[in-house]
Order: sequence, then structure tokens, then C-alpha cells
Amino acid sequence: MKDQTIICSQSKIAGCDFALYPMTDQFVHVIMKALEEVDTSKVWVKTTDVGTCVRGKIVHVFDVTKALFLHAAQTGHHVVFSGTYSIGCPGDSAGDVFLAEDDIRLNEAQSSKIQQNIAGKFSLYPLGGGDYMDMIYSQIEAMKQEGIHVSSIHYATRLDGEGKDVFNGLEQVFTNMEKSDSSHTVMTVTISANSPSKKDVDNNE
Amino acid sequence: MKDQTIICSQSKIAGCDFALYPMTDQFVHVIMKALEEVDTSKVWVKTTDVGTCVRGKIVHVFDVTKALFLHAAQTGHHVVFSGTYSIGCPGDSAGDVFLAEDDIRLNEAQSSKIQQNIAGKFSLYPLGGGDYMDMIYSQIEAMKQEGIHVSSIHYATRLDGEGKDVFNGLEQVFTNMEKSDSSHTVMTVTISANSPSKKDVDNNE
Repeated sequence: MKDQTIICSQSKIAGCDFALYPMTDQFVHVIMKALEEVDTSKVWVKTTDVGTCVRGKIVHVFDVTKALFLHAAQTGHHVVFSGTYSIGCPGDSAGDVFLAEDDIRLNEAQSSKIQQNIAGKFSLYPLGGGDYMDMIYSQIEAMKQEGIHVSSIHYATRLDGEGKDVFNGLEQVFTNMEKSDSSHTVMTVTISANSPSKKDVDNNE
Repeated sequence: MKDQTIICSQSKIAGCDFALYPMTDQFVHVIMKALEEVDTSKVWVKTTDVGTCVRGKIVHVFDVTKALFLHAAQTGHHVVFSGTYSIGCPGDSAGDVFLAEDDIRLNEAQSSKIQQNIAGKFSLYPLGGGDYMDMIYSQIEAMKQEGIHVSSIHYATRLDGEGKDVFNGLEQVFTNMEKSDSSHTVMTVTISANSPSKKDVDNNE
């Protein structure tokens, strides 16, 4: 894979280090089937025993992670996606990425057909700057424009709605951060589908 | 619970927003049993459909999260702990915490008996300061002194070893950060036990 790596100095490398957790004895099958159904050819991918890392352009990193979660959730099992999106890390190495791809999303047609109610949360960490709390608050406001129910919890912001809308909102916020003054942004995300637990939406936003 | 909240302005509130993911049809039973076996009386706890939040002194936040993971992993199922530890967030509210407790760990005697090989990873995010990468690098070095195999992966640092040693190392690093110049530190952690996947330890540290 590394031999095919194409570096483009014009774009920053985006990436997501994530895992899918299907709470079922068939967890291997659920994960493998999602991986079969999703086209990952526009991102660099590495899977290990502690998770999967994808790297590439922002659009493709989100296209692939959204599609993997939605396909796994469609099985009806309780499935959780837990991931860390990152861009601009000064300690990042230049390789392990495809950046010369176009912006056409390979999995959008399939993903847009999947209806899946989710409960989730996200946290944004703009690193290296003193005004990071203002950046966080403004992106929480931006998330409220995406058709998602947004509420406050300790250490994160809770999101409830359609899975595809939530991933689209997260991509918008992450893209806003990439265009902002923050040179290095990390966003942690947890998205849960088909939980047997009662919803716990706090309306005190 | 809120009525019993005791605030102590001398200590910063530490917290962990986490979930246990047992990859089995019996996931509810595994989680409930771990919660029964662990004494959480020295931390504030709230569980929702997207995870559990514990808040209190650093020692008790780590005592409880370590014990919950080790008890769940002891069932032999593939179990993953995924959590975000945080201290010093300027947007944090003062409540929902017990800080007037002593430093005696309620679960250490049980946890120290549990042998459990794990594979994990952690990332440290010191917020609001320009020299955050140096802080991160020095804590990765500190982790190597804790009897854990430490290696580099994209967006995180991989940890392999005994589960209790790994949690002890994470607590040490988090405590070091609390004593450092960083006023607000976030640490994300993923710890996996009993995975059927082949270990993927990179020795190129």
C-alpha cells in the first residue's frame, strides 16, 4: 500500500482512528460485512486489533466512516461507532494517505438511502491556541443548524437524530475548523444505534 | 444525587466519560455485573444510553474505571473500554462531583488480583497552550517507565501489557499533566481485552 502513496502538499491530511463495536456474538461478521459493502478505495486504510485508521481528504474520510457505521447499524444489532478525527497534527508523518483523489464520494448513494435513528456525542479540541473555547462554542452553534437535536452533557455535546444527518453535521463542523485559524484540530465522536437503553435526551440546552 | 454534591474549591474536578463495549449477546449482563462488583461511592456517576460519566478526585476516577474494565474483561468476552478523561475544562460546571473524599481506593484490592493482557492506545490533548506537542512527547516517554510496551501509531500511542499496569500508567501521566502548566487536559483511551484479532504490535517505536 505504501508504494502507492501519493503526497500532495496543497492539502492537509485528514484522518480518523475508529472502531465499530457490535454488541453481539456475531461481531466479526457484522464488521466484515460492513467492510465488504463499503468502497474504501479513496482512503488509505489500516486495521489492527485496536481499531481502524483511514487517511485522505476530509470528504472521503467522512464518506467511508459514515457508510461503515450505517451499514453495520442496518443489521439491527446494537452497534457503536467510536472515532477520533484529526487534521493538521504537527507530529503527523507525511505518508500513508491518498490525497490526489477527486471529491466524488463513492458511498453517498448507498448511505443516503439508510434510515437509522442514532444517539451520539462529540467533542472538539482545537490545539495550540488560547481562544479554543470560543471556537468550540461557535461550532456547537453551527451543529444546531444541521437538523440535529443538540444538548449539553459533561465533556461533550450530545447529538440525536438521523445517522446520516449527524455524520453530515460532524463533517461540516470539522471542515469549518480546517478553514479556521486552528492549525491542528481533533474531534472525538461516539455514535450509538439500536441501544436497548431508554433515550436520555436533556432538553436543557 | 445533586443534593449530596460537595464542592471543594481546592481540588480541580477530574472526570471520565466512558463506555464498556462487550462484543456478545450478553452485553447488558456483562456491564450490569461489572457495575455491581465495583464500589462507585466515591465518585459521582451518571449512566445514559450513550455512556457513563464519573466525576471526582483523580484517584477515584481511575480506581473506578480500571475496576469496571477489569471486571468486565474477566468474563472472557471481547470487551473494549473507550473513555475520555478530562480535568480543568473552563466550560465545566462546578456541580455533579464528590471532592471531599479521602484518597483510599475502594477497588484496588480486587483490581490488583485480576490478570488481564490488553492492547490499547491513548492520546493526550493539553489545551490552550502553544507548547502542547512537547508536553505530549514527554508524557509518552514517562509511559515507557511504567512497564508497558509503548509504540507509535497514527493519532495515538499504542500500549500493550497487563491491564492494571496500563491503567496505572495512564493515571500517572494524567496526574503529571494536572501538575504541569497545562490548565486543561484531555486524554482519550481505548483498551481492548480478549480480541480474536492477531496482535499488531509495531516495534518501531
